Amino acid sequence: MSASNPELRESHDVYQADCPCRMLLDVVANKWSALAIGVLESGPVRFGELKQRLGGVTPKVLTATLRRLETAGLVEREVFAEVPARVEYSLSPLGRSAAEPLAALRSWAEVSLDGAAPTADAGTP
Amino acid sequence: MSASNPELRESHDVYQADCPCRMLLDVVANKWSALAIGVLESGPVRFGELKQRLGGVTPKVLTATLRRLETAGLVEREVFAEVPARVEYSLSPLGRSAAEPLAALRSWAEVSLDGAAPTADAGTP
Repeated sequence: MSASNPELRESHDVYQADCPCRMLLDVVANKWSALAIGVLESGPVRFGELKQRLGGVTPKVLTATLRRLETAGLVEREVFAEVPARVEYSLSPLGRSAAEPLAALRSWAEVSLDGAAPTADAGTP
Repeated sequence: MSASNPELRESHDVYQADCPCRMLLDVVANKWSALAIGVLESGPVRFGELKQRLGGVTPKVLTATLRRLETAGLVEREVFAEVPARVEYSLSPLGRSAAEPLAALRSWAEVSLDGAAPTADAGTP
């Protein structure tokens, strides 16, 4: 990664621990990120609605998830000067670019369930 | 999910906390799972080689990752009666089906880096 001209820069490699792209993989390769980005695909959403859509998420975990996505530049947080203040989350262009591979991953989980190990489907005869 | 005829079963929904497919999403939406499955795509691999390929992984984390993948039915572990015993990990058909969406996610991280927030690219001028 020593090339100073961006156009000549070597390609990134997620298998290298010190490649900055590893951080991006870490942020999106996460269950809650995958679910939150899916909801945000259809437009800006408030915290409360996100929490409702992501079944089982706690406020603490959702806050941490959104903060990581915001820090990594995938999600934008906008505060509207109202009383009480309204806060909306939306996808940045980078976040929108992550939406497609994450949708594929969510679909994979939904359609692949019947091929999973028996313990994965506990509760179904 | 109360239908007893599998063909009539409602579709799964990762947004429901109690849908068994949530567990599958949780297993694959993980940085180390995404990297390990990528290595296993090209055939059976021993623990030591996997550890070497996944830059930065600790033996403890790799062991836990492989165990989760095995429990969920994505990875198979085969022990060969040699001295010392040889253990190889490979993808099950379910694991192979996850390889494609995970490859897309890894590629996304590698090609999207330059659109990430400045802090994501620390070290590069």
